[in-house]
Amino acid sequence: MPANNLDPDVAARLKRDEHGLVCAVVQQHDTGEVLMVGWMDDEALHRTLTSGRVTFWSRSRGEYWRKGDTSGHTQHVRSVALDCDGDAVLVRVDQVGAACHTGTRTCFDAGGDLGAVVGSAPGQDHP
Amino acid sequence: MPANNLDPDVAARLKRDEHGLVCAVVQQHDTGEVLMVGWMDDEALHRTLTSGRVTFWSRSRGEYWRKGDTSGHTQHVRSVALDCDGDAVLVRVDQVGAACHTGTRTCFDAGGDLGAVVGSAPGQDHP
Repeated sequence: MPANNLDPDVAARLKRDEHGLVCAVVQQHDTGEVLMVGWMDDEALHRTLTSGRVTFWSRSRGEYWRKGDTSGHTQHVRSVALDCDGDAVLVRVDQVGAACHTGTRTCFDAGGDLGAVVGSAPGQDHP
Repeated sequence: MPANNLDPDVAARLKRDEHGLVCAVVQQHDTGEVLMVGWMDDEALHRTLTSGRVTFWSRSRGEYWRKGDTSGHTQHVRSVALDCDGDAVLVRVDQVGAACHTGTRTCFDAGGDLGAVVGSAPGQDHP
């Protein structure tokens, strides 16, 4: 069990999955780009909230991963918000360089568009 | 096992969790607001890609959930992109009304800010 230094008031509000993780959506603070999705346990969230740098729990490697330590593509925290049911956080950052390990700005640029049929809201004449 | 009508080329690219789900980040297409996070199995993604309306798999209720059918707060699809490793999709939508069941525009407005220490990128003089 990793160390857990998270503020107990925050910890009490989390709804973790069976692996003790919450989903972390990372967004560029000024452009609004959704850069990537990662995972945090209590300690990773604690480090993210208190250090100014985003830290994830790597499910594949089973270790903490402070974004940019090997790539140089650091994520500098602007704000962190919890969602209504406590199972996801929105981390607004200033991203240096590419957020994706493939070298693209966002991980969704890398995977690419799936060609969805476009819907339109009532009262609108687009698409 | 629910029906699965998802395009096999898309299905082959997904990396589902042990429950057969991928993470779906929903973003308002014009403002960039991150509205909510939900979950999709293959069939929910198929319906989202082909119907113009966002459909999730509800983990708590164990059923498909087409956003807005009870609340009226529909999500109209603009685009869907897969991430680099296939375990998350970014769904850009036109959201009618509140995305959150609590009545706030986004689920992160409802949960609220966690008071993170702000970091600053090299060469910048903010925060």
